[in-house]
Amino acid sequence: MRAITIPEPGGPDALVWAEVPDPVPGEGEVLVEVAASAVNRADVLQRQGFYDPPPGASRYPGLECSGRIAALGPGAAGWAVGDEVCALLAGGGYAEKVAVPVGQLLPVPKGLDPAEAAALPEVVSTVWSNVFQVAHLRPGETLLVHGGSSGIGTMAIQLAKAVGAKVAVTAGSAEKLAACRALGADILVNYREQDFVAEVAAATDGRNADVILDVIGAKYLERNLDTLAVNGRLVVIGMQGGAKAELNLGKLLTKRAAIAATSLRARPLDEKTAIVASVREHVWPLIESGRVRPVIDRALPMAQAPEAHRLMESSAHIGKILLTV
Amino acid sequence: MRAITIPEPGGPDALVWAEVPDPVPGEGEVLVEVAASAVNRADVLQRQGFYDPPPGASRYPGLECSGRIAALGPGAAGWAVGDEVCALLAGGGYAEKVAVPVGQLLPVPKGLDPAEAAALPEVVSTVWSNVFQVAHLRPGETLLVHGGSSGIGTMAIQLAKAVGAKVAVTAGSAEKLAACRALGADILVNYREQDFVAEVAAATDGRNADVILDVIGAKYLERNLDTLAVNGRLVVIGMQGGAKAELNLGKLLTKRAAIAATSLRARPLDEKTAIVASVREHVWPLIESGRVRPVIDRALPMAQAPEAHRLMESSAHIGKILLTV
Repeated sequence: MRAITIPEPGGPDALVWAEVPDPVPGEGEVLVEVAASAVNRADVLQRQGFYDPPPGASRYPGLECSGRIAALGPGAAGWAVGDEVCALLAGGGYAEKVAVPVGQLLPVPKGLDPAEAAALPEVVSTVWSNVFQVAHLRPGETLLVHGGSSGIGTMAIQLAKAVGAKVAVTAGSAEKLAACRALGADILVNYREQDFVAEVAAATDGRNADVILDVIGAKYLERNLDTLAVNGRLVVIGMQGGAKAELNLGKLLTKRAAIAATSLRARPLDEKTAIVASVREHVWPLIESGRVRPVIDRALPMAQAPEAHRLMESSAHIGKILLTV
Repeated sequence: MRAITIPEPGGPDALVWAEVPDPVPGEGEVLVEVAASAVNRADVLQRQGFYDPPPGASRYPGLECSGRIAALGPGAAGWAVGDEVCALLAGGGYAEKVAVPVGQLLPVPKGLDPAEAAALPEVVSTVWSNVFQVAHLRPGETLLVHGGSSGIGTMAIQLAKAVGAKVAVTAGSAEKLAACRALGADILVNYREQDFVAEVAAATDGRNADVILDVIGAKYLERNLDTLAVNGRLVVIGMQGGAKAELNLGKLLTKRAAIAATSLRARPLDEKTAIVASVREHVWPLIESGRVRPVIDRALPMAQAPEAHRLMESSAHIGKILLTV
């Protein structure tokens, strides 16, 4: 088969579409013929040499895919050859074939093209596990999402609205904020021109944000604490603004607040399996009813992965960038 | 009635046993004739002028008491004059009488003296709400308690052992560690001589602590993160070692861990009521069966509150210091 390889870490052109051996599905795995994968920021870090795949994972990038089951490994129960699926991956999605543990498979939701479904596994699993399973966002609460027009952001807005929460977003342009508004966001903050702490306070009568989903990390830590409500929960899933910052525990204590930080890729199989099962139970019906949909900026052929990475790094996109086989 | 007043903030002798007007129970409150109160570190901060009572609370110190209901305020249902009770207070326990919202009352557990019951409300509510409701300590997990011989520590050891957890403690002397051992602690660390990070790692085969209950704050933040297990939860309830410290979000993210900080006194009545109801349901049976007991260093007459505060500040005590009327 062919896969995107990284002979040497570096810029976007470090990604090379090359002939490689087919993967072999192991115990409890299936082989998926990939229809599409999607780009995540973690793929950029991996390409740059800053984020090695966890032990046992494929060396190729790609944390999600969709396609059709081509073969079953030993003990792979509950699925059949020919099933159209999408999947959460620890790597290997940028390829014609990938081996996937059955616990990380989801059916392609009714009403979606198989390729579109590649936009779902990573963002839905990330948003569901962090905003709902870790931070327990409840109806009537306010969620603040940094980067509202990203793949994660566009899914977080929709899922939070679907459960009856109010949603505040930050983004860097009027066009991106308009996209967030169209998805249901209530409070729009252009972070290049406005202070999100002041804007969220004003728009919530000083109640502030009950849950914050953050990809910035250190640079926003103090201001995130400032904009957190009493009993608030900050979940950090990215560190685009650095890892180390001063924490004022007194502020945290006065607000009776919590800071959690998570990642999905390094979790053991049993935790991923539990998240995927919960996603299928709680989120898939919202997608199949049309209430929640994948937001796709564009689809490029897999061989144009360098172009797709340039787009991701430019932050000019809105929603997901797909790579199709 | 008489109460401990603080005419001017300062050292232990700032506490003055003086004649003051009786409190009047308001809507949904009862008047308790106090048998005993107990000393908490927050009382020391209040005496020093660093921790004002929340709005509406008694000006006198004392965050818990036991005694007998002397009168019912309007709408105070579920209790009768003469009932022996103990209570979580927002203040006012260092007095002959105190007005208490009914949601903060607990019956004196069967088998305990009324005075002994004054040792329970604050520590049981603190440990239950933080270790179990916030951090969800589960059977088989490891809890690390800093200050294992304190009132909080002696209760945390017992409750964690009662649910089948392993318990590690830090304390500053062999005598204190022996007291922790007698209560069931499995891993004993003399923080004056040993590094708790290394000791907990060695005693858990590198699994480390799933939950940490911390009263030190900034000074221990980095080492607490080092000793936290994957999926671990650090709960900070005191800042004896300062409030501000550098947080490495990358470390938190790699461990998929969380830091929460809480206090009990400033919570609104509905939250306190919910905590007290949960304590009565889950912890009171453990006390009435003798499985868990209050650990009391000594009882002093209320007029000797200055002496009791000197003892608290010396940290020479093990368990609770009572003040009796």
